[in-house]
Amino acid sequence: MDSAVHPDVRETAEAIDTMEIRGAATIATAVAEALATQAAESDATDPERFRAEQRAAARVLYETRPTAVSLPNALRYVLQDMEGHSVEVLRDSVVRSATEFQRRIESAQEDLGQVGANRLRDGDTVMTHCHSTAVVACIRAAVEQGKEIHAMVKETRPRNQGHITATQLREMDVPVTLIVDSAARRYLNDVDHVLVGADSIAADGSVINKIGTCGLAVNARDCGTPIAVAAGTLKFHPDTLTGHTVDIEMRDEREVIDDETRAEIGDIEVLNPAFDVTPPRYVDAILTERGQFAPEGVATLMRELFGEGTVDPWDEPE
Amino acid sequence: MDSAVHPDVRETAEAIDTMEIRGAATIATAVAEALATQAAESDATDPERFRAEQRAAARVLYETRPTAVSLPNALRYVLQDMEGHSVEVLRDSVVRSATEFQRRIESAQEDLGQVGANRLRDGDTVMTHCHSTAVVACIRAAVEQGKEIHAMVKETRPRNQGHITATQLREMDVPVTLIVDSAARRYLNDVDHVLVGADSIAADGSVINKIGTCGLAVNARDCGTPIAVAAGTLKFHPDTLTGHTVDIEMRDEREVIDDETRAEIGDIEVLNPAFDVTPPRYVDAILTERGQFAPEGVATLMRELFGEGTVDPWDEPE
Amino acid sequence: MDSAVHPDVRETAEAIDTMEIRGAATIATAVAEALATQAAESDATDPERFRAEQRAAARVLYETRPTAVSLPNALRYVLQDMEGHSVEVLRDSVVRSATEFQRRIESAQEDLGQVGANRLRDGDTVMTHCHSTAVVACIRAAVEQGKEIHAMVKETRPRNQGHITATQLREMDVPVTLIVDSAARRYLNDVDHVLVGADSIAADGSVINKIGTCGLAVNARDCGTPIAVAAGTLKFHPDTLTGHTVDIEMRDEREVIDDETRAEIGDIEVLNPAFDVTPPRYVDAILTERGQFAPEGVATLMRELFGEGTVDPWDEPE
Amino acid sequence: MDSAVHPDVRETAEAIDTMEIRGAATIATAVAEALATQAAESDATDPERFRAEQRAAARVLYETRPTAVSLPNALRYVLQDMEGHSVEVLRDSVVRSATEFQRRIESAQEDLGQVGANRLRDGDTVMTHCHSTAVVACIRAAVEQGKEIHAMVKETRPRNQGHITATQLREMDVPVTLIVDSAARRYLNDVDHVLVGADSIAADGSVINKIGTCGLAVNARDCGTPIAVAAGTLKFHPDTLTGHTVDIEMRDEREVIDDETRAEIGDIEVLNPAFDVTPPRYVDAILTERGQFAPEGVATLMRELFGEGTVDPWDEPE
Amino acid sequence: MDSAVHPDVRETAEAIDTMEIRGAATIATAVAEALATQAAESDATDPERFRAEQRAAARVLYETRPTAVSLPNALRYVLQDMEGHSVEVLRDSVVRSATEFQRRIESAQEDLGQVGANRLRDGDTVMTHCHSTAVVACIRAAVEQGKEIHAMVKETRPRNQGHITATQLREMDVPVTLIVDSAARRYLNDVDHVLVGADSIAADGSVINKIGTCGLAVNARDCGTPIAVAAGTLKFHPDTLTGHTVDIEMRDEREVIDDETRAEIGDIEVLNPAFDVTPPRYVDAILTERGQFAPEGVATLMRELFGEGTVDPWDEPE
Amino acid sequence: MDSAVHPDVRETAEAIDTMEIRGAATIATAVAEALATQAAESDATDPERFRAEQRAAARVLYETRPTAVSLPNALRYVLQDMEGHSVEVLRDSVVRSATEFQRRIESAQEDLGQVGANRLRDGDTVMTHCHSTAVVACIRAAVEQGKEIHAMVKETRPRNQGHITATQLREMDVPVTLIVDSAARRYLNDVDHVLVGADSIAADGSVINKIGTCGLAVNARDCGTPIAVAAGTLKFHPDTLTGHTVDIEMRDEREVIDDETRAEIGDIEVLNPAFDVTPPRYVDAILTERGQFAPEGVATLMRELFGEGTVDPWDEPE
Repeated sequence: MDSAVHPDVRETAEAIDTMEIRGAATIATAVAEALATQAAESDATDPERFRAEQRAAARVLYETRPTAVSLPNALRYVLQDMEGHSVEVLRDSVVRSATEFQRRIESAQEDLGQVGANRLRDGDTVMTHCHSTAVVACIRAAVEQGKEIHAMVKETRPRNQGHITATQLREMDVPVTLIVDSAARRYLNDVDHVLVGADSIAADGSVINKIGTCGLAVNARDCGTPIAVAAGTLKFHPDTLTGHTVDIEMRDEREVIDDETRAEIGDIEVLNPAFDVTPPRYVDAILTERGQFAPEGVATLMRELFGEGTVDPWDEPE
Repeated sequence: MDSAVHPDVRETAEAIDTMEIRGAATIATAVAEALATQAAESDATDPERFRAEQRAAARVLYETRPTAVSLPNALRYVLQDMEGHSVEVLRDSVVRSATEFQRRIESAQEDLGQVGANRLRDGDTVMTHCHSTAVVACIRAAVEQGKEIHAMVKETRPRNQGHITATQLREMDVPVTLIVDSAARRYLNDVDHVLVGADSIAADGSVINKIGTCGLAVNARDCGTPIAVAAGTLKFHPDTLTGHTVDIEMRDEREVIDDETRAEIGDIEVLNPAFDVTPPRYVDAILTERGQFAPEGVATLMRELFGEGTVDPWDEPE
Repeated sequence: MDSAVHPDVRETAEAIDTMEIRGAATIATAVAEALATQAAESDATDPERFRAEQRAAARVLYETRPTAVSLPNALRYVLQDMEGHSVEVLRDSVVRSATEFQRRIESAQEDLGQVGANRLRDGDTVMTHCHSTAVVACIRAAVEQGKEIHAMVKETRPRNQGHITATQLREMDVPVTLIVDSAARRYLNDVDHVLVGADSIAADGSVINKIGTCGLAVNARDCGTPIAVAAGTLKFHPDTLTGHTVDIEMRDEREVIDDETRAEIGDIEVLNPAFDVTPPRYVDAILTERGQFAPEGVATLMRELFGEGTVDPWDEPE
Repeated sequence: MDSAVHPDVRETAEAIDTMEIRGAATIATAVAEALATQAAESDATDPERFRAEQRAAARVLYETRPTAVSLPNALRYVLQDMEGHSVEVLRDSVVRSATEFQRRIESAQEDLGQVGANRLRDGDTVMTHCHSTAVVACIRAAVEQGKEIHAMVKETRPRNQGHITATQLREMDVPVTLIVDSAARRYLNDVDHVLVGADSIAADGSVINKIGTCGLAVNARDCGTPIAVAAGTLKFHPDTLTGHTVDIEMRDEREVIDDETRAEIGDIEVLNPAFDVTPPRYVDAILTERGQFAPEGVATLMRELFGEGTVDPWDEPE
Repeated sequence: MDSAVHPDVRETAEAIDTMEIRGAATIATAVAEALATQAAESDATDPERFRAEQRAAARVLYETRPTAVSLPNALRYVLQDMEGHSVEVLRDSVVRSATEFQRRIESAQEDLGQVGANRLRDGDTVMTHCHSTAVVACIRAAVEQGKEIHAMVKETRPRNQGHITATQLREMDVPVTLIVDSAARRYLNDVDHVLVGADSIAADGSVINKIGTCGLAVNARDCGTPIAVAAGTLKFHPDTLTGHTVDIEMRDEREVIDDETRAEIGDIEVLNPAFDVTPPRYVDAILTERGQFAPEGVATLMRELFGEGTVDPWDEPE
Repeated sequence: MDSAVHPDVRETAEAIDTMEIRGAATIATAVAEALATQAAESDATDPERFRAEQRAAARVLYETRPTAVSLPNALRYVLQDMEGHSVEVLRDSVVRSATEFQRRIESAQEDLGQVGANRLRDGDTVMTHCHSTAVVACIRAAVEQGKEIHAMVKETRPRNQGHITATQLREMDVPVTLIVDSAARRYLNDVDHVLVGADSIAADGSVINKIGTCGLAVNARDCGTPIAVAAGTLKFHPDTLTGHTVDIEMRDEREVIDDETRAEIGDIEVLNPAFDVTPPRYVDAILTERGQFAPEGVATLMRELFGEGTVDPWDEPE
């Protein structure tokens, strides 16, 4: 049946596989485009055949990088509402979904920035962890709304991505105070918001983000400082709808300690996890381009956008 | 009246002032020695005169470095029980107190190590923050008791004193895992104890220690991991008995970020506080050479050892 | 394009503007009526024109009192499902939505009362804060279900609206105990429920209500007493879907202290905020005419009823 | 109008009434089947008549055991989407819903098992309370995924259903450790998950389950051990959507103490509640065959599956 | 044996009984004076006789107002260290204790003020509840130390003692913001300290103070704002050492609502408790003239100052 | 040197060793008696010799059952204040301490009962766990004070000691409600106090008591129900002063499950720990015969009664 997969789909799959196409939004856009092409140029004459072609195309795309969180989201978004009793209606529904999805992605960062900016008030100080384009978008939108925002930037060991955040905030003239990660608690009572990004969001409302996020969130909650997570819906992790956990990448030990210093200390183990998992009870709001949600409510939005997780649109029907 | 101050006292004071004599225990020992000399060689003929001399000597010593926490503790310890109706009895009490105090200091680290070691069980993993000789003494004593102890060492930005801890633990063959400070939360459920030192302990049970301690303690409590503070009674902060707060040193910004990187980022503020304050509700036990105490009970021990804070032994009577 | 706005719409807008039409339910009903008239009497011949007229009418209505929380909810409810490819179908959908919405409003208080009453058991004591018709409706419904309910009424300084609550409860023969606001904690372990109304409900589950609600909720949670918020869906705050915060009205200082007493005290500042914001973690349930919800789930209901907040039905399409 | 109720419906109702048909899933399947028969064999000629027949059939079924939680869920599921302007379309919608519902029920346990299994990792230890087929299904699925799972089984006084759990887990070669209920806290830091079933789930996210669940959940939360509730959506309690509380069955006192021992003690009261209620703040996730949800989000799923609770499908329209 | 009671003791007892002598410090001073006179003018010739006289005098004094908290404290303080094998030594010990006690009382307020002032920093804002001379003393001492202090004063219904606090603070030019009690939570994140007085302090660390204190303390803890209780050791409640609870006075209902308003509302109950009890876990420090203590440590100080509670100095030996 | 140990001491040691003398109070009394005999009948002629004899006697006694918690307490109590420069004075101090200690033990249970009774109010309901003579003493004293007390008794698996508690309470006509352990949470909001005994109390304020105590305490704290521990000072665990942890006895598995049932289940592990450890933050008060204390303050009392733990009175001086 794979023979029916359109050459453009195969080309897109190839490009994702070779990481020519990379980045959550770029992959998602390309995948939606590919499915639209498959639909538009299908010469299937009966609905069942058309559906089978779409499934096949989806499967080819999916298998290139099954852990890239935005890829299955794109497939699910485009195909979940494929409805109709004729090829024509089905084709229309796929093309419309794909277009709508691409349109959404295009404006997502800006829309999310507005949502985050609306939570900030003139004169607020925001504490950040690591670097997140979504967080920067929120602060930028607030500045563009005419609000004066201050930032307290955690350096975020071991890779000091806080320096990137600081640089980008300085470019928009936001006053920046840099601190080591351990100093966060000391200043949490002095800031008005903690605002962090996310690597992905799980269906139970957990936030997977740069190592240090959970410890920060627990302290923020302990002293009553609100903490929001800025993460477009592309970051929603579809496998978690069915209980799957997210594997945490362990990174190169040399990010933590250089070889020479390590040799001086002696024979030690070094653990360098990239992320941690923050349970929803420590988070006040998930900010998306669709608006803000309590973390406990994101499963509903995930299902609305990307379908119930129990059936994958690229699976053969049983 | 100062004329009655013994030359050895003045010499000790000078050495403290020039930091020739430094370190909490060394200062305390020298101060006790000086008061003993003042007492032993006094030619006062009436008790009142003798007391006045001791006060004067204490004042000379005190004024050299009023913020060195062990200095007033030594003065208080030696003079608080100065009792008697004759010069002879007074002299004896001062000399005896000074000797006892010096004896205590000498064995304090080892005694405290035993107390800490007793809390650990064979096979336990201990998480540490920064470097504390008291913490290392606890782990050493546990190892000497034949227990197998593992250590999870936080590097402790910005100065990486965790490397010192790691080095010293490796010297006694304790297996060490090094992590960045932000990774602590992720591993708190896997360790059996958090064990940290203290810069000083306040009368309300608060712990002043290396920046990052409070955030760590809040997380340890949140996931039910016991946290103890190893701190000899010399670290008790006498001024806090009367409500005084402890000033937190702000350190050189270049510890946080080098000039070049900073220049690239742009015009930012850097805050580098050396310590933070952990309220007693996040701490399970204060470990001293006198045994272990709930932090809420240390004020009693402070008063027992160093006297009620409302009268300073170097003050003129009203 | 505004020329196409129906005179009845303009009339309604005028009446809202002059506050001839006031009160959340009354405004909402009038607005739905106006949109239905606009639809019913439209002589648009193509769907696009029809839609433009509806947008224009909505805009005219919206601009009269953009902060009245039920006004945009009515506009959103009626227009969000405006679907169809012919004027006829569009017209039908608008008229049907408007009718349905008005029907809902009519029975909302009673329906909500049932929901609240169902949570109460025979013999329960309910603590109230301020005065809320929704809360009174819940207790009334419980009494009508034959349950014996007792009320502990907080007086609610500075305006003593607790007296209104007490009066209305006495009219239905509910035994009432009146206390000062500060006495609430002392009796929280003796009551079975805390039941309060809301000025508005935010998308992140926060409850904006009479000053004192948050402090009461924190204490109720601390001693395990359940706390529910009775608030019809008209109280949902549509702007908060996109992160907007709710401004808190500061009221006349003379509500707090009369001029004479103030003069005697001397030159003081008086702050008299009308409301505070209770985060969802302190609230057990939001009671609406649509049933009860955990506060973290209200964003979903808001979107279902009033549409995604990112597009306003009175906005021109880009 | 009841004369129109199909004999098969009456027969099913009779069988439920006499408990010939029993068990949540069996009842639900039978009820759906009966409604489908009623629809398929209806000779109604107008839509209104058809709807009235369905309502009548639903009412007959509902009244047999109004407290059996799956019965109204089946009625609601099948009838909530009964849509259409012709008898034919209505008939189709009912038959389709009934079939879909039965299909769901058939695969529910296995699907739920997958969701639960996905949350577990190789080598995890799971603590269980009472006996739940859903929990056993989760562990079975994990074992079938090739994961090594250990179980710590609470005996669950007074009826020791933990023994059933232990037996079933041993049959699949899962290593089992049995403890008394009081020992749970002591081992909570040593287990990776707490996994319990539910008697029913309320709309505010509360979990009604075997007595002891709430106390266990509070302790699990206190020491940071995740706790999930495995409960198919048939366990959702429809009455709670409108605020109804769930009555807790009081069971035979002889389950707690035999007559002889009791006589020796003297004249005592014995209370033996079957269940308790765990508020959502102590639960991390509800695991259903539709995926996992934060407990605060289940009301949305309840409404999606079984309709808004404010109108019962067996009620006469007003 | 009572015949041996000195006429001055009887006179003092009479004056306390008729409330000619009133106020905690005045009573305590008078009682100590009376015991000293009894001792000084005793013509007892054997120690046992002397002790019996003192017991008798104490009993006469004690029985005048057994619930006045400072009265038994004075008796305990003076008599607990009555030691010696001769009348002369006993007499001396009593007179010395009485003098010391009176000296302490005299300077207590000022000493306590210093302790409280030391906790405040320049620029701090302090929230107060009710009126407490100890709290005012702390703020006064801080001002005299040259610190700029702002005060946020809760009015403290029903008697508005906050107005007294405001007036006294204005007299020392402290800027004052007045709020209703319900507004406290809203501003707790903006203040640096909560500082309240106490009616009495119990041995388990509980604080009995003006109604509203506990609810305020729970909220302060919830948002991490430190809360201290300023209360001289005369406020320590001696009966609580042996577990006795403190009765809470119910005050006149007309303080809450005037007769006319009440009549309009209808037949209601009014409860007007004067105090509530704040458990020690919500309080950071008890500030006394002897220094500051964690509330959990006050039992030790109580025993040190006033003796173990299990034996009353006015009791006949068994 | 052991040759100087008095035959009566050896006899007592023998009797403790063979468990002829058993029970905390009986052992303690016998040990004090033995030391008094050793002192009274010593023919030592110099103080050093006298001290050596006492140490030797103490060592002989101590070594019989070093884990019996009251044994070292007795040795410490009697010998810690052995002071003096002559044999006569030393002898007196030992005999006096021993007598005082025995007198204390004799009245301890009753004194403790008074303390506990004073915390209870007329009409209170008390929840108990396991069986504790101290708890029964508290309730008995309350009943004798004329208070009406109700008891909710947890059966306390696996050995159902709750039945003993129930029997003893029934004997004094206290109404008893029996529940399974798992039902405690459900009724915690309905009881006024939780009152439990202790196997021992640690210096950091932890309570070692029957398995299930910690889980109960966590739930009591979670719903604001006060929890007190009734435990005479003989239960203070002296080794914990220096950080030693308390070993938890694992009991016979057949207490949990009989062999037959176990065989039916299959090959399972059974864990039956006798005790658990409750951290002080979950306990409101420790009730002793010396009065009540916050658990965080017991270390002070331990040191006062039994000496600083760092030196054992049976150790040879270094």
